[in-house]
Amino acid sequence: MITSLQNNQVKNIIKLNQKAKARREQGLFIAEGRKMFLEAPLHWIEKVYVSETVEKQDTEVMEKASRTEWEAVTDSVFRQMSDTQTPQGVMTVLRKPSYEPEDILKGKKPLIMVLEDLQDPGNAGTIFRTAEGAGVDGIFLTKTCVDITNPKVIRATMGSVYRMPFVYVEDVVSLKEMLRDSKIRFFAAHLQGKNAYHEEDYTGGTAFLIGNEGKGLTEEAAEAADCLIRIPMCGQVESLNAAMAAGILMYEAARQRRG
Amino acid sequence: MITSLQNNQVKNIIKLNQKAKARREQGLFIAEGRKMFLEAPLHWIEKVYVSETVEKQDTEVMEKASRTEWEAVTDSVFRQMSDTQTPQGVMTVLRKPSYEPEDILKGKKPLIMVLEDLQDPGNAGTIFRTAEGAGVDGIFLTKTCVDITNPKVIRATMGSVYRMPFVYVEDVVSLKEMLRDSKIRFFAAHLQGKNAYHEEDYTGGTAFLIGNEGKGLTEEAAEAADCLIRIPMCGQVESLNAAMAAGILMYEAARQRRG
Repeated sequence: MITSLQNNQVKNIIKLNQKAKARREQGLFIAEGRKMFLEAPLHWIEKVYVSETVEKQDTEVMEKASRTEWEAVTDSVFRQMSDTQTPQGVMTVLRKPSYEPEDILKGKKPLIMVLEDLQDPGNAGTIFRTAEGAGVDGIFLTKTCVDITNPKVIRATMGSVYRMPFVYVEDVVSLKEMLRDSKIRFFAAHLQGKNAYHEEDYTGGTAFLIGNEGKGLTEEAAEAADCLIRIPMCGQVESLNAAMAAGILMYEAARQRRG
Repeated sequence: MITSLQNNQVKNIIKLNQKAKARREQGLFIAEGRKMFLEAPLHWIEKVYVSETVEKQDTEVMEKASRTEWEAVTDSVFRQMSDTQTPQGVMTVLRKPSYEPEDILKGKKPLIMVLEDLQDPGNAGTIFRTAEGAGVDGIFLTKTCVDITNPKVIRATMGSVYRMPFVYVEDVVSLKEMLRDSKIRFFAAHLQGKNAYHEEDYTGGTAFLIGNEGKGLTEEAAEAADCLIRIPMCGQVESLNAAMAAGILMYEAARQRRG
C-alpha cells in the first residue's frame, strides 16, 4: 500500500498527468476512472493504482486488476495524485499504442477524420468518441494538434481512444500526397465552401478535414482538399464548435452509408 | 477609472460571475469578451467595463461603449475581476432577458429544443450556439438545468444567447401539457429508441428532448414523448455527448426542412 506522496511511483504519475514530454519519453499515459480501466485492453496496461476504498469494495475492478500489475494507494494520497475533482479511485498507466496508416486504411471505402492544429482537449476527445459512434475507421492528426494522451483528451474520449486508430502526420499536404493512390476524397469543412455538406456523396472513401478552433483550416490544407463543403448556418452564427462540425459531418456520412 | 479591487462595483461583478443567487436577485448577468460586447443588444446593456488598454486602443469597442454607460478599470484590477485566464479587457453587465413561450412558438412549424436537467455549462452553451446555426426557434429548459446566465454558459454560446429565446419550465410533463394544442411532436433522444433518428420526419412542428449528461431523460419525460428516437452507434459507444446528440438531431431537422 502506497501511503506517501513522496513515493516515486506517485511522483511519476503526477508527472505523466501534467507533462507531455514525460509521456513521450516514457511511452506511457494515464487514464483515470473506473470505466477507463474496465474498457482498457489488457495488453496496453502497464499498471493500475486503486484507492483503499476501491480495493475493499469494487469487486469488478479488482477482478480485472488481479489480471494485471496493481497496487493500492491510501484514499488521501489518491485524491492528491488525481487529475480530477472527484476521483473514482482507479488510475491506469498505459503504454501508448502505435498505429500505422494501414490500420486506418485497410477497409474498402474508409471514412477518416483529419484534424489540423486542433487544440482543445475536450474537442479532440469528443471527436474520438463521436467518430467511433459514427463508424469512422481512424483519425489522422497534424503534429501541431493537442497531444491525444493528455489526460483531459483521454477522459473526453470515454474509452474510444482504445478502439479508434490514430496517426500523427507532418501536415495535411503530406498526408494528401501519401494517400494519392487511395481514391479517398478529401472534404474540407470551410466557411467559404460552395456546396452544402448534405449535397455531397460520402459513400466512397471519404476524409473530412477539420481545422483549428479559432483559425479554421490553413490555406494549404483547404487547397489540398478535393472539395470545400460548408455547414449552412442561420442567424448570426459564424461557425460551429469544431467537434460539433466534425460530428455533424461524420453522422451525415454514416447516414448516407446506411443507405 | 477604477483602480482598486475594493471598489464596490468590482466586488459586485465578481459576485455576479460566481453566484447564481446574486444574478437572480439583481436580474443581471455578466458576459466577458470583446465579441460578447459587440454583439450585445444595446437595450440589454446595464454597463460595460473596459481595461485601460482597451480604452486606449480599441476604437470599435469604445465607439459602442460611448453609446452605453461605461467605465475604465486598470489592467491589473481587470485581470482579477475576470472569470477567464486570458481576459480581453471587456466585461459587460447585462439585464436578464425575459421571454414568454409565445416568443418561441410564434412560427408556423416551430423547431424547438427541450433540455431536461442538463448540467454541463459547456454543453448548454454549445447547444445554444448550434441551435441558432440550425434555425431552432427557441429552447425550453427544466428548472433543474444549469443556469443559462452562468458565465461559462454565456461564453460557450458565442453570442447566441442574445438571439435564441429560452424559457425555464417546471418539467417536461408540464411543458408537454402546455403545448398539447400546438401540434408539436415531441421526439426524445433515447438509447432504447425504436426508430433511428434519420428515419423520422421533422418538417412539421418538432421538439427534441435531451436529457441529463449521465442519466439521460427521466422516465416521465420519455413517456411524455410522442416518439423515442435513437442515434445509431457503432463500436462500443454507449452514448454521445449531450450537446453532440442535440446538434446531430437539430442539423438533421434543418437538412430535412431545406428539402
